[in-house]
Amino acid sequence: MTPIDLRSDTVTRPTPEMRAIMAAAEVGDDVFGEDPTSIALQNRVATMFGKPAALWVPSGTMSNQIAIRCHTQPGDELLCETTSHVYLWEAGGPAVLSGVTCRTIDGHAGVLELEQLASKIRPDNEHYVRTKLVCLENTHNRGGGRVYPIEKIAAISHWARHNGLAMHLDGARIWNAIIASGISAAEWGPHFDSISVCFSKGLGAPAGSMLIGSPELIAQAKRVRKLFGGGMRQIGILAAAANYALDVHLPKLADDHRHAAILADAVRETPGLQLEFDTIETNLVWFTVDPEWGTAKDVAARYREHGLLIGSMGKQVLRACTHGDVSATEIERAAAIIRQHSAPRKLARA
Amino acid sequence: MTPIDLRSDTVTRPTPEMRAIMAAAEVGDDVFGEDPTSIALQNRVATMFGKPAALWVPSGTMSNQIAIRCHTQPGDELLCETTSHVYLWEAGGPAVLSGVTCRTIDGHAGVLELEQLASKIRPDNEHYVRTKLVCLENTHNRGGGRVYPIEKIAAISHWARHNGLAMHLDGARIWNAIIASGISAAEWGPHFDSISVCFSKGLGAPAGSMLIGSPELIAQAKRVRKLFGGGMRQIGILAAAANYALDVHLPKLADDHRHAAILADAVRETPGLQLEFDTIETNLVWFTVDPEWGTAKDVAARYREHGLLIGSMGKQVLRACTHGDVSATEIERAAAIIRQHSAPRKLARA
Amino acid sequence: MTPIDLRSDTVTRPTPEMRAIMAAAEVGDDVFGEDPTSIALQNRVATMFGKPAALWVPSGTMSNQIAIRCHTQPGDELLCETTSHVYLWEAGGPAVLSGVTCRTIDGHAGVLELEQLASKIRPDNEHYVRTKLVCLENTHNRGGGRVYPIEKIAAISHWARHNGLAMHLDGARIWNAIIASGISAAEWGPHFDSISVCFSKGLGAPAGSMLIGSPELIAQAKRVRKLFGGGMRQIGILAAAANYALDVHLPKLADDHRHAAILADAVRETPGLQLEFDTIETNLVWFTVDPEWGTAKDVAARYREHGLLIGSMGKQVLRACTHGDVSATEIERAAAIIRQHSAPRKLARA
Amino acid sequence: MTPIDLRSDTVTRPTPEMRAIMAAAEVGDDVFGEDPTSIALQNRVATMFGKPAALWVPSGTMSNQIAIRCHTQPGDELLCETTSHVYLWEAGGPAVLSGVTCRTIDGHAGVLELEQLASKIRPDNEHYVRTKLVCLENTHNRGGGRVYPIEKIAAISHWARHNGLAMHLDGARIWNAIIASGISAAEWGPHFDSISVCFSKGLGAPAGSMLIGSPELIAQAKRVRKLFGGGMRQIGILAAAANYALDVHLPKLADDHRHAAILADAVRETPGLQLEFDTIETNLVWFTVDPEWGTAKDVAARYREHGLLIGSMGKQVLRACTHGDVSATEIERAAAIIRQHSAPRKLARA
Repeated sequence: MTPIDLRSDTVTRPTPEMRAIMAAAEVGDDVFGEDPTSIALQNRVATMFGKPAALWVPSGTMSNQIAIRCHTQPGDELLCETTSHVYLWEAGGPAVLSGVTCRTIDGHAGVLELEQLASKIRPDNEHYVRTKLVCLENTHNRGGGRVYPIEKIAAISHWARHNGLAMHLDGARIWNAIIASGISAAEWGPHFDSISVCFSKGLGAPAGSMLIGSPELIAQAKRVRKLFGGGMRQIGILAAAANYALDVHLPKLADDHRHAAILADAVRETPGLQLEFDTIETNLVWFTVDPEWGTAKDVAARYREHGLLIGSMGKQVLRACTHGDVSATEIERAAAIIRQHSAPRKLARA
Repeated sequence: MTPIDLRSDTVTRPTPEMRAIMAAAEVGDDVFGEDPTSIALQNRVATMFGKPAALWVPSGTMSNQIAIRCHTQPGDELLCETTSHVYLWEAGGPAVLSGVTCRTIDGHAGVLELEQLASKIRPDNEHYVRTKLVCLENTHNRGGGRVYPIEKIAAISHWARHNGLAMHLDGARIWNAIIASGISAAEWGPHFDSISVCFSKGLGAPAGSMLIGSPELIAQAKRVRKLFGGGMRQIGILAAAANYALDVHLPKLADDHRHAAILADAVRETPGLQLEFDTIETNLVWFTVDPEWGTAKDVAARYREHGLLIGSMGKQVLRACTHGDVSATEIERAAAIIRQHSAPRKLARA
Repeated sequence: MTPIDLRSDTVTRPTPEMRAIMAAAEVGDDVFGEDPTSIALQNRVATMFGKPAALWVPSGTMSNQIAIRCHTQPGDELLCETTSHVYLWEAGGPAVLSGVTCRTIDGHAGVLELEQLASKIRPDNEHYVRTKLVCLENTHNRGGGRVYPIEKIAAISHWARHNGLAMHLDGARIWNAIIASGISAAEWGPHFDSISVCFSKGLGAPAGSMLIGSPELIAQAKRVRKLFGGGMRQIGILAAAANYALDVHLPKLADDHRHAAILADAVRETPGLQLEFDTIETNLVWFTVDPEWGTAKDVAARYREHGLLIGSMGKQVLRACTHGDVSATEIERAAAIIRQHSAPRKLARA
Repeated sequence: MTPIDLRSDTVTRPTPEMRAIMAAAEVGDDVFGEDPTSIALQNRVATMFGKPAALWVPSGTMSNQIAIRCHTQPGDELLCETTSHVYLWEAGGPAVLSGVTCRTIDGHAGVLELEQLASKIRPDNEHYVRTKLVCLENTHNRGGGRVYPIEKIAAISHWARHNGLAMHLDGARIWNAIIASGISAAEWGPHFDSISVCFSKGLGAPAGSMLIGSPELIAQAKRVRKLFGGGMRQIGILAAAANYALDVHLPKLADDHRHAAILADAVRETPGLQLEFDTIETNLVWFTVDPEWGTAKDVAARYREHGLLIGSMGKQVLRACTHGDVSATEIERAAAIIRQHSAPRKLARA
């Protein structure tokens, strides 16, 4: 039996319908700006977020790192939450690719308050980096898939612009935020100067992300994409999948969120497990395991024996991530496995 | 009528057969190393070149830049021909992404002699960069698609290794070299520590390149790929196209080479035009236009009016590039257009 | 009357005796390694710290940044306290000059506990930076000139080495730590792989710092010094001052520490002022001003009117720094000014 | 007997008079912009070159690298002669410190013609670096100390500005050019946006260089100086030496030039030796040795036995550099040693 794979929403595979769309996609050389499908997708997504321009890129990491490079100079600083993807999971890109220092601030479930940011602009003095950019993440992965409250974003954005700082959104899972909150792309968009979105997580396209912003930013981003080696050719094949995903998969994210709530209940009711974030707003369920039950790796190994794959994300930390390749039935089964097989055998017998 | 597009072999579009293969590809999350199709392709291509490991990457530029980063430290120097792709057309990547200085040496048709390199290792002294890497390109694009003579490569490689320098091959068009020379991948491979090959040029896959080398190099390359934002997910879709291209398109490159020779004859026989490299070994025809005939842009515009697209690559420089999307009939038509429409109308009438 | 300048110990001017020594210094070309005075100083200081080698450099910032570069590769991470000089006051050097990410950890008075560090090594995974270096600062400037407890350093060093991390000490004010604690250079030295010391702060030389470590590290550092533009010529002029300072000024730091205690008493007893760190171990007195008394700048301006210069280091934060150019009498006068002129005139009158 | 040291003009040692001036210098903290002697020197030198601002820096390398960083962004390109100091002898700084690619052009004796530069601006296209800066060197060290003809500079400067390129002068030996040509600093200055001058070569100060330019450039340069670790404190000690050198040593460079001519005659008349540049305009004499006479190192070793130090700069290349620490008598002796001891003993006897 195929295991139930809840390690990440990146494991989603294209459906037969998506594959058929991809196989029929009209394509051209995207480095020459001649791929009609990626052009159409760029226009569509830019419009969704109320921005004039967008650029297809191979990955969310590249999208974020291009944005950081476009907004800064070497020696500049960006402000971000301590557990944000750009700081934590992008291999040190801000320092290596842009010479940019990250100033990390501890939020609650990945969310920063304006008050925490307001004192963080460095004085204008040769000893200091120059504070230039705020990066937010919505939903915030390490914050339990938390939807960033839009009024907090609005306040931060207002302050940032008043102080000459650019605003970037790592929206790898903005689609989840849109579905969970009912707040449209067009409402999130205006608070940011650049937005990165991803098609290969919850949306289920095989690969691809997009950077959205002003025409000037996107022109600059196209240069950086080439520099980073992200210029690809008949990319309409992948863009067609993204386009289909926006039509068909986007609304289905609500299922993923319901599924996550079911898993969270299982965790909540299982001795030895503890939810890291009590409120489950989207598709991520982070939880810790009591050291008496073993390490996260031990628990993940027990689940695996029973056909459930869950990510071990730290010594005692696990993450279950729901997505479109996992059905309601499988979620019930996964919940049952969590309930029954979290404890080590000897404890389980007791 | 669709124009005949000879601007680049990157404009090739997947055929129906290739599309069907892609649509049926078995896929997984390649960042997790679980995409069976890209794994199979990596193994196949590594084996072809007699190397133990390989890594799929989004583009030839990324492949080259990853290799440069893996072979060097900031403050190192690489030796390359003045018109090599890594120096000329990769947006300054060696300096920006690796802090590496390029030492450029003028070759003949992109080909360097051992004698030119042998004096180029910097003394070990704090004023100097440290010479660490030789980058060759085969076929050499700006050298007229010249096949790098393997005995010259062997001599350079022997010298490089004797002197502690790594050898990298930009093999974006190594496939053309293999077909044109009859020298197999397995014969080219051993002279290099890393080889970059491309599936989206003559081979006609929509996108994708591969870096080939030792397991240690490829492990490091995987880290750098993530850093550069080249980690993609269900990439088997594209790898399947590459795999098919190796089966079906690779042998057909001989047609492209014959077609280039036909175009070269047209150029040779047309007043006002001058071949840059008299011998046409593969699929590239570089030529210059007499300023009295106008600029390269003027000539390209005249061709375009008649349904032929050719790249304007410099003030007086044009390049025609044959590939699998252009048939023998179209090549004849293209040759005729070159013969008839190179001259400005008034001169043509004379 | 010359103002009493407590803004920094960097303002110290060479004494007549020091000037005479400098004027008589034997010199040579230090880039060629032929300056006898800097060689002698390098040997002396290396020996003091129980290390085999050392290198004169123009500044403490360069010394730290060279060390960071020698211990790391781009994409690596260093661990440091949030207010450490390398992160806060070196213009973003780790990111710009070495592509290194700083992971900042909040200490108490700049001091980190082993427990805080022990969980901070990143997993070996392409998403993460590689944790490679710990930077400590002793005394810790922004921690109130706190002497880093040597047993805490020993524990961190033991852990770091066990985990393959290098240890760097920013010892810009290690001299103060040595005098205040009675713990010799030879006792601090073995816990670190590299140590940066400064001659132009409390020691009173006009300029110059030194990086201390293994011969391999120092050979590499010499290359980086050249790269950064820190190779200077007849530097024995400055090295002679440093040498004299070690003989004559080092023991006098005890006076600076006594003077700081006197100033701290004045702050402690003045309404509207609050010591940031109650224990004054060395020559730095950090304090805050009640917003009702005005900003730090307001208070500094009032002091200035009465002939006292004190650094305004934040909106409400001031720092007084004692050093050899300020006499006991002047310290008494400074304390009196603090007592009398901290409050705004109208409040003062009340 | 002390050897005659013609390895470099960097070996000059401060005279007793210079030492006395240094010992009496008024100083302050230059990082705070309070060193009166360096301020005065900055004003003096800026005025000499007809520019509004200047900044003291520790070395010529730092001065050049700061200028490059101020004029460019990562991904930009600078144009320079193949043997220019910024490319050849600054440890790869443009790539490492600024992410800048050097495009090297072979000149005659280090001198480029406008025609060589005029075709070198890259097209505006994402594949290319952006051409932004021209760096010239005057006198050109590896060009035999050649004075750059001012009319060639004027033409290049006019073209550069017309094309939006900045102009930087590496004027490490501009003082020699001024004395040799009779063309004043004020005449060279206007052709450049930034000028780097050095006080520790022919002028004989122990250390220090200066970057000259607009107030905006110098403000930015001050930030970069701090970043690179070039911020030093009571630097008036060194600035005083530079100031004295401008008064007293500058006119004496004419002696160095006469001395170089004497050495050149010796070389010219010695079998087995060959001047690299027949015209000796300033203080550098580059020459090659016939392999039958041995390597440059062999010849240098023979000279050394007889008390003459000359730089071995390549396998068969030597350089003699005259300066103020070598008297007319010593030059005669050096010339005699060259005449008598260039050949290996057995050949010499023949």
